[in-house]
Amino acid sequence: MNPFTDNPSASIAALGEAGLLERIREWLGPAMPPYPEGMGDDCAILTAHPGNLLTTDSLLYRCHFDDTAPPEAAGAKLLKRNLSDIAAMGGRPTVAVMSAFLPPTTCLRWLEGFVRGLGCCASEHSVRLVGGDLTQTAGDPAFNLTLLGQADRPLPRKGAQPGDHICVTGELGGSLSGHHLTFQPRLEEGRWLARQTGVIACIDITDGLAKDLPALLAEGLAAQLDTACLPASEAVKAIAQDDPNRLLHHVFRDGEDYELLFLFRGDENAKAGLESQWRKCFSTRLTAIGEIITGSNEPAILDKVTRRALLSPTETGYLHFR
Amino acid sequence: MNPFTDNPSASIAALGEAGLLERIREWLGPAMPPYPEGMGDDCAILTAHPGNLLTTDSLLYRCHFDDTAPPEAAGAKLLKRNLSDIAAMGGRPTVAVMSAFLPPTTCLRWLEGFVRGLGCCASEHSVRLVGGDLTQTAGDPAFNLTLLGQADRPLPRKGAQPGDHICVTGELGGSLSGHHLTFQPRLEEGRWLARQTGVIACIDITDGLAKDLPALLAEGLAAQLDTACLPASEAVKAIAQDDPNRLLHHVFRDGEDYELLFLFRGDENAKAGLESQWRKCFSTRLTAIGEIITGSNEPAILDKVTRRALLSPTETGYLHFR
Repeated sequence: MNPFTDNPSASIAALGEAGLLERIREWLGPAMPPYPEGMGDDCAILTAHPGNLLTTDSLLYRCHFDDTAPPEAAGAKLLKRNLSDIAAMGGRPTVAVMSAFLPPTTCLRWLEGFVRGLGCCASEHSVRLVGGDLTQTAGDPAFNLTLLGQADRPLPRKGAQPGDHICVTGELGGSLSGHHLTFQPRLEEGRWLARQTGVIACIDITDGLAKDLPALLAEGLAAQLDTACLPASEAVKAIAQDDPNRLLHHVFRDGEDYELLFLFRGDENAKAGLESQWRKCFSTRLTAIGEIITGSNEPAILDKVTRRALLSPTETGYLHFR
Repeated sequence: MNPFTDNPSASIAALGEAGLLERIREWLGPAMPPYPEGMGDDCAILTAHPGNLLTTDSLLYRCHFDDTAPPEAAGAKLLKRNLSDIAAMGGRPTVAVMSAFLPPTTCLRWLEGFVRGLGCCASEHSVRLVGGDLTQTAGDPAFNLTLLGQADRPLPRKGAQPGDHICVTGELGGSLSGHHLTFQPRLEEGRWLARQTGVIACIDITDGLAKDLPALLAEGLAAQLDTACLPASEAVKAIAQDDPNRLLHHVFRDGEDYELLFLFRGDENAKAGLESQWRKCFSTRLTAIGEIITGSNEPAILDKVTRRALLSPTETGYLHFR
C-alpha cells in the first residue's frame, strides 16, 4: 500500500496535530499505558523505574534550522529541545541516543560542526550520549534524540485549581530572531521549582503561550492574564513597534520560547516569598502573569481587565500538519 | 552553513558507515562514555541503572519497506528491529517512544495500519509505548523508535577466545523475499542463551553474516566456518539454484536476517548438551557453523576445509553511505 494520498480529506492534514495525536492514541490501544506514563506530559514518567523520565524530540533541516544556523548551534538545539522537556518536569538529564537520517551528499565539515555542538552541549549538562542510529536518506538531514532523566518529584502538567498563580520564566516571543538557537534550557530553574511545595504544575513553552497554557487547564478552568505584565522579548518589542495587538500576537503565538510556564499555589505573601527566593538564585526573569479561575467547559484565556477571551479556541499557537 | 556538498570527497559518502561512526565518536569526545555504556554493542548498557538496556532504530519508506508491504507489517518492523537488539543482549523489552517524520499528504488509512501494526506488536511483547514526537516533513515518511529493556546478565559482543563455537539461530539469506517483514525477533531464545553460562557473546545479524560476524572477533582472532553447515533459507536455495557460490553470497551478504549469532564455550559434550536442551525449548533451528581460531591482525572469516579466507576484508555485508 502506498503511504500517500492525493485526496486532502483522506490525509493527515485533514486532522491537524491534535486530532492526529488523538487517533494515534486510539490506534495504539492497550499498547499505550495511561497518563502519566503514557502521552500527555513533557516527559513520560516510567512507572517501573520510579523518578525516571523519558522524552524524545526531532530536528529537521528547513524546519527547525536553516543555512543561517551554525551547525554547532543546530546540533546543540537537538539536545536542548529535549533538555527543555526534562526541565519542565523538574528533572536532571542522564543519557541519550541520537538517530540521524543523512543523504550521502551531507558535507562532512557541516556534520562535524553539528556533532561537536551536540557533544559540547551534552558535556555541559552531564548528558552521556550512549548510542544511536544512522540511516541513509534521499531527503533532507533529519535527527531525533531520545533523552532519559530523573526527578525526585516530577512536575506534571495537571493539577490546576482556581486561585493558582500563573508564572513564566524569561521573555516570550520573537524566537526566530535567534533565541530558537541560543536559548538555554531552564534546567536549574526547573529543579528549583520542583523543590518548592507551592509549585503545582509546569510545562515548557515550545508552541507558544496560546497553545501551551491551555495544556495546564482542566475542564471548567480558565486562565485570566494581566496582559500588561506579559514579559515580551526585546525582539518582539522591536517587531511590534508600539502596536499592543502585534505585541500580544507574537508573545502568544511565536513559539520556541523554551521558557517554563508554571502554577504556584499560595497567598500573595507566599508568592512574594517565592519571587524573592528566586531572585537570590537566578538572574532569569520571573513574572506572575495571571491566575487560574473557574471557567466554562472550553479551556479559555481571558483578559483580566476586560474579562473577555484573549484568544478564541481556534487561535492557538504553532499548529503542525496544516 | 549549508549541510550539503557537491564535492564527493568532502561528503560523508567518502567515509562510508564504519568511517563515519569512528568520526562521530571522535567528534562527540567525552560526551560519549566508553563501551559498554557507549557505542559498540547492540544496546547501550546503562551504568546508572544496572541491567538497563537502551537501543534505537529507524525505518524509512523506500529504504526499509515499500508499497508491497502492508502498513501493519511496516509498523511492526519498526519495533521488531529494536526488539532484535534487545534479544541479542538477552534482555526483555519494557518501554518505547516513537518519532515520526510525516508529510501532510500521508494517507490516514495507511498511517492507521502502520500504528495499529506497531501497537499490536508492542502488546504482544509487553512493550509500553509511552510517548513520541510528530514532525512535518517535505520528504518521505520516516520513523524512529527508542526502546528500553532489562537484562540480568547482558550478553555482550566482546569476549571471544580461540576454541569458542560459533552458532546461529534460524536460517540465513534471502530476506527480501519477505522475511525482512515477517521475521520474529528471537527474544525468548536470547533470554534463554543469557541463562546458559557457556554462552559468551551474541549479536543479531542485521547487515549480513559477513559484516556482523567480524564484530564478535577481537584482534588476533579469526572465524573458521564449515560452509557445508551454513543454514541457508529456502528463499536463498531457490535463488541460488545449486550454485554454491551464489548460495554463499546470499547467506553472507543479504542482511536483515534478524537471527542471533553467538559464541559458546565448552567441549563437544557441552555443545551437544546445549543443542539438546535447545531442542526441548524451541522449534527454531540452531546450527553450529564453526569456531574461533587464532588469526592474524585483521579479523578474517576462513573456510574450515581450504583454510583460506572466505571473504576479503572489503567484501563485507550491507554497507551504508556508499
